Amino acid sequence: MWPNRRLLDLLGTELPIIQAPMAGANGAAMAIAVSEAGGLGSLPCAMLDADKVRAEIGVIRQQTTKPLNTNFFCHTPEEPDPDAEIQWRKALERFYLELGLNLSAAAPAPNRRPFDDEMCTIVEEVVPEIVSFHFGLPAKELVRRVKSAGCTVIASATSVAEASWLQDNGCDAVIAQGYEAGGHRGMFLAEDITTQAGTMALVPQVVDAVSVPVIASGGIADARGIAAAFALGAAGVQLGTAYLLTPEATISELHKDALRSAKDDQTMLTNIFSGRPARGLVNRIMREAGPMSDAAPIFPTAGGALAPLKVKAEENGRTDFSSLWSGQAAALASEMGSGELTRQLAEDGLKLLARLGGRAAQSIL
Amino acid sequence: MWPNRRLLDLLGTELPIIQAPMAGANGAAMAIAVSEAGGLGSLPCAMLDADKVRAEIGVIRQQTTKPLNTNFFCHTPEEPDPDAEIQWRKALERFYLELGLNLSAAAPAPNRRPFDDEMCTIVEEVVPEIVSFHFGLPAKELVRRVKSAGCTVIASATSVAEASWLQDNGCDAVIAQGYEAGGHRGMFLAEDITTQAGTMALVPQVVDAVSVPVIASGGIADARGIAAAFALGAAGVQLGTAYLLTPEATISELHKDALRSAKDDQTMLTNIFSGRPARGLVNRIMREAGPMSDAAPIFPTAGGALAPLKVKAEENGRTDFSSLWSGQAAALASEMGSGELTRQLAEDGLKLLARLGGRAAQSIL
Repeated sequence: MWPNRRLLDLLGTELPIIQAPMAGANGAAMAIAVSEAGGLGSLPCAMLDADKVRAEIGVIRQQTTKPLNTNFFCHTPEEPDPDAEIQWRKALERFYLELGLNLSAAAPAPNRRPFDDEMCTIVEEVVPEIVSFHFGLPAKELVRRVKSAGCTVIASATSVAEASWLQDNGCDAVIAQGYEAGGHRGMFLAEDITTQAGTMALVPQVVDAVSVPVIASGGIADARGIAAAFALGAAGVQLGTAYLLTPEATISELHKDALRSAKDDQTMLTNIFSGRPARGLVNRIMREAGPMSDAAPIFPTAGGALAPLKVKAEENGRTDFSSLWSGQAAALASEMGSGELTRQLAEDGLKLLARLGGRAAQSIL
Repeated sequence: MWPNRRLLDLLGTELPIIQAPMAGANGAAMAIAVSEAGGLGSLPCAMLDADKVRAEIGVIRQQTTKPLNTNFFCHTPEEPDPDAEIQWRKALERFYLELGLNLSAAAPAPNRRPFDDEMCTIVEEVVPEIVSFHFGLPAKELVRRVKSAGCTVIASATSVAEASWLQDNGCDAVIAQGYEAGGHRGMFLAEDITTQAGTMALVPQVVDAVSVPVIASGGIADARGIAAAFALGAAGVQLGTAYLLTPEATISELHKDALRSAKDDQTMLTNIFSGRPARGLVNRIMREAGPMSDAAPIFPTAGGALAPLKVKAEENGRTDFSSLWSGQAAALASEMGSGELTRQLAEDGLKLLARLGGRAAQSIL
């Protein structure tokens, strides 16, 4: 039995493992596999339009009756600044020249839309058991509607202050997202990445500050991290990078190959791919234009100017301009199906806790 | 019984808790209290001259027969650059003006000497059971002499590459120092702080890479962190910030007060106080001259130009120019004696492991 059942009771899942919603890296297949295995599968909706969200949820509901999480971004959209975009393209011009591309080939960035009335209406129709948010929470009225529909609401915090804010604003559980985590940092009350806390420090401080269940994330990719999270007081874990080598991950083979050889000290936080800090494997463009750049246009537009470079380089088998999202523990990831991985992680995590505790108990009794 | 006894067997201590050597923040009193309590007390020697090292070890040996760790820095000293020093003072001139101080008041930095023949001779005389190093290892011949004297050698690694290097070069155990850790980062094969891994990600990857026992450090300041470290595969922990509120800590009351109200998101890595990256509570000079500055002179000289500002500001009860070393989990620190704290941490850590494991075992049996 899991040492802390608060998250299981809240989510209605068998296992306290949430598959992190990874926009661009997973769709319905992974969510189905994880939910069917007893964990919480997640559908990332930030890069999908309304029709696609409906269709994907429809597919999932056909394949599993287990709880589902749908994830949305809730940044406040800002008006793009054409001058900033021109400056950004200028800063990247030398790469265009090198690859024989014309700057006019630069495309608009993939949209990452915030949760809005239209998406909320879909949520009210299909009622995913859990709705998770990144970058804070949407407007109060939208949160109220999601909760009124019967959904459990969770969201990411990168500090104690953010965790307390999320609890005060209606979250039923908070994800403590440590510095190690891959992809976009959920930070919304602060912008300074230099004060972000690691998972080991963040989780117990969040546990002490809020009364809702805490989900640990960041640097957790095997059973050891899961057991450690429970030791820190978490009631569950959210894993992303651990699932990137599964067949259900929708990332490129180049991205998977990079992950297969990733080491602990080969990721950085960068804002050049979207405009907001996100962790990925270090590559040429991060080193040469970042990793953090004041010239990167506002979220989510920064990546547009990199898109043609990425396409051209990848045609030649190179990831010099690709966003290779990854947390700091990619080396711990296993290559197997998402469902099997979920069950294995849970089984190994419980066994490890039992083994550690069995020995510890000998000296106390 | 501790789930992993490899470090206990190596160190000859009762408890797998190492009190971090903190140059300027602890002396003989803390080392005695921790060793007497069953942990491993540490004497930081980097800022002491040879006579003082002998005297302090003498005091410790009179008070306890338990194992002792003496810690040394082993950076390669560089020739100070007078021009860089002049530029640095110029960059700080406005603060001197504001505080009514003359730039000529700037003093030389407190010396932090690397381990050398003279210190090695003392080690050979007094044979501390353990000798730990920061910033890599000293020259091979010095390592050989320390080991020939019968000392166990340990050192800090901030990456898997550094851990493997330390094992290959004679370390009997390695300290995996996560990003969360307070004070100077032990990094020696890399200089880039943006790729440094958090404790949750670093420890299991180091455990997988080396065969010697791994000591977890960074963000661990209570029993939860200790239990988590064992879950990650560590054979012990090294705690620093946790001991800063004990009566044996030799830091200022201003520093202690700052620690008492510290939050998870109030530290940064900075090089302005010494020339090398170290984590401390954010204050005015870190924000206005750093936190990382290309203008900061080489280690360990950068702090000299800040010394008069620090003294003057502290006279007025302000820590605007003080190095307030702290890890990211100061809020978890308890105010009690170093010995009592050591015993309490161990007892609570074991109880927590037993409790977690007891519940986990129910579902497996």
